[in-house]
Amino acid sequence: MANTHDYGERSLHMHYEKRGKIEIVPTVPVKTSEDLSLAYTPGVATPCLAIQKDPELSFCLTRRWNTCLVVTDGTAVLGLGDIGPEAGMPVMEGKCVLFKAFGNVDAFPLCIKSKDVDEIVNTVALISGSFGGVNLEDISAPRCFEIEKKLKERCDIPIFHDDQHGTAVVTLAGLINACKLTGRKPEETHIVVNGAGAAAIAISKLLISYGFADITLCDRTGIIYEGREKGMNPVKEEMAKITNKKHLQGSLADAVRGADVFVGVSAPGVLTKEMVQTMAPQAIVFACANPTPEIDPKDAKAGGAAVVATGRSDYPNQINNVLAFPGIFRGTFDVHAKEINDEMKFAAATAIASIIPDDQIRADYIIPEAFNPVVAQTVAAAVAEAAKKSGVTREYKTL
Amino acid sequence: MANTHDYGERSLHMHYEKRGKIEIVPTVPVKTSEDLSLAYTPGVATPCLAIQKDPELSFCLTRRWNTCLVVTDGTAVLGLGDIGPEAGMPVMEGKCVLFKAFGNVDAFPLCIKSKDVDEIVNTVALISGSFGGVNLEDISAPRCFEIEKKLKERCDIPIFHDDQHGTAVVTLAGLINACKLTGRKPEETHIVVNGAGAAAIAISKLLISYGFADITLCDRTGIIYEGREKGMNPVKEEMAKITNKKHLQGSLADAVRGADVFVGVSAPGVLTKEMVQTMAPQAIVFACANPTPEIDPKDAKAGGAAVVATGRSDYPNQINNVLAFPGIFRGTFDVHAKEINDEMKFAAATAIASIIPDDQIRADYIIPEAFNPVVAQTVAAAVAEAAKKSGVTREYKTL
Repeated sequence: MANTHDYGERSLHMHYEKRGKIEIVPTVPVKTSEDLSLAYTPGVATPCLAIQKDPELSFCLTRRWNTCLVVTDGTAVLGLGDIGPEAGMPVMEGKCVLFKAFGNVDAFPLCIKSKDVDEIVNTVALISGSFGGVNLEDISAPRCFEIEKKLKERCDIPIFHDDQHGTAVVTLAGLINACKLTGRKPEETHIVVNGAGAAAIAISKLLISYGFADITLCDRTGIIYEGREKGMNPVKEEMAKITNKKHLQGSLADAVRGADVFVGVSAPGVLTKEMVQTMAPQAIVFACANPTPEIDPKDAKAGGAAVVATGRSDYPNQINNVLAFPGIFRGTFDVHAKEINDEMKFAAATAIASIIPDDQIRADYIIPEAFNPVVAQTVAAAVAEAAKKSGVTREYKTL
Repeated sequence: MANTHDYGERSLHMHYEKRGKIEIVPTVPVKTSEDLSLAYTPGVATPCLAIQKDPELSFCLTRRWNTCLVVTDGTAVLGLGDIGPEAGMPVMEGKCVLFKAFGNVDAFPLCIKSKDVDEIVNTVALISGSFGGVNLEDISAPRCFEIEKKLKERCDIPIFHDDQHGTAVVTLAGLINACKLTGRKPEETHIVVNGAGAAAIAISKLLISYGFADITLCDRTGIIYEGREKGMNPVKEEMAKITNKKHLQGSLADAVRGADVFVGVSAPGVLTKEMVQTMAPQAIVFACANPTPEIDPKDAKAGGAAVVATGRSDYPNQINNVLAFPGIFRGTFDVHAKEINDEMKFAAATAIASIIPDDQIRADYIIPEAFNPVVAQTVAAAVAEAAKKSGVTREYKTL
């Protein structure tokens, strides 16, 4: 594995010198008395009163329409775990940088000093009228599922947990091209997902919705199946019902035997070369644990994998959420969508995959690079179109 | 009075075209894989872990140190009253524009969908770790006093209610120069403050702290005195104890008789020319009700007032909070002050007054113009110095 220590030290000093990666700037001048009278008092009373009459006008008279709340409680930051709300801020600010740079979305980072689900939900719901959408970030499972669900019930703007849905979209994008390259149809492709956190659950659900043949979901204990007693929880119970059509039981090694695809969002080194050797020919391995993957890509190749992807920028085929969230929110905001549904996620995944023309897909190039500026535009257009088609757009009021 | 209707219509259309007066922009590039590795993963883990070890480092590794939360519940927006949280947003965004343009403070506008004191306090407290300070805005009295007090108890960053303290600072600045011009010493100057809202209470308290001889506070019912029964509340009871040294009773007309200064933050037209005629010679009249003052400036002059100020930009001597809050927060953030105390407010008022050299103070020029860019810098330097002297600065951690 490459040494990431240098990035860490350099990043620390960059943060210290910059003292923050975002700033908030005016889009209107306030150089004269006239400017002040239009941007502030007395003129500003008129747009205020217009919104009082019709709160929907807040989407066209303020920055709300383009503003995304990036919010965490600091309980599952990167692979670092529960490091506290203040300590999550450098990641949240980084996310906001990416939102603006790639999607022209104004994103604001917020860290909530509470681990209580209802308190977090209440806090976000009470301020949701200031935003066009909410991006939940780095909140530990299974709390993140409940927080997302309750916020969707209380808010009339899109609620998107990126660790779930962003990851699922990019994984699906990679799988679309990996299946093309290895001549697989989704409805014939058997996938093992390893991990039972937010990402694994969301990936499994999205792949099922998309039409993949069968998903076997594994956690530390092994294959998740209906009736298993050890290490279950309500979310796993639910997943047991919609995955594992063959009712397999056993270990991860048992699960991958004969499988077409391994998707790991779990822990370092849990997949061995020997296990890959038992998979179907031309196997696909997505080893996305960060910073150390479930298997070293060269071991996966040595085990017979035709395509290998990781979560790292220093290997080919990086499964990186930045390919998804800026474009997803751009498209969502462009058409004032009230939610981000599966159709929009499929559109995003297909758009990401489509950046690479079919005849240019290669084993080490199934997914575009994270800083390719065309991706977000393509995703945005596809997501906007899917939102309109699926009828989830908000009526845009005009004066 | 000048017609403000044109500003309203023009402002509405400006808001519609701009669709928001602020945006959130990166201060770091993300054009290459290297950029991404420093601003985001994997490098960003290192500043996160540093803050986990010492949360005080959030002030030097993120934008927190320079970020002010501008927050309202929409209950007392401008003179419009309780128009709802979404409808308050154009004012909050305008405030954020002024914060950045004049003070280089990154201010973010938030509207809370609740009128419950404890719910508002809890919401702000839970997100306070993302900010360097909080500017409460347009929250109705007496709730605003309780919200401010409770937030000061729960948060370790400055909490500043601008409608109270910003207004008080600028009023004091104007009075300092008006007293100079009319040859008055504060300790000999008797002031009538009319209004019993947030501004009137804060102005009275600050003027007392500063050393003015006596304050008579009046509300709709007349002079506030100990033992009055009609229209009292806990805040007025408290004020009755620290104002009105002469134990006056009666109407506003009774209060102003012989007084040196009238400060109105109340309602249109409550002060008449005849009442001004009963004031001390060379009287000072600050008629700050917006948009229609307590007395038309030409009537005040006709009644014998030597100096007249209003809250309006189309008359001389505008008492405008923008003279205070950008510089106050700039100075506060520059030295990492934990609170904004009276010493800092006095310093701000004195700094604003000092912009006009003594020999240039005139009846129609006692206070600098709102868009004079020198004001905020001067205020910031004075506030920072006062914070250091009064020992309220936070130890600034270095790497």
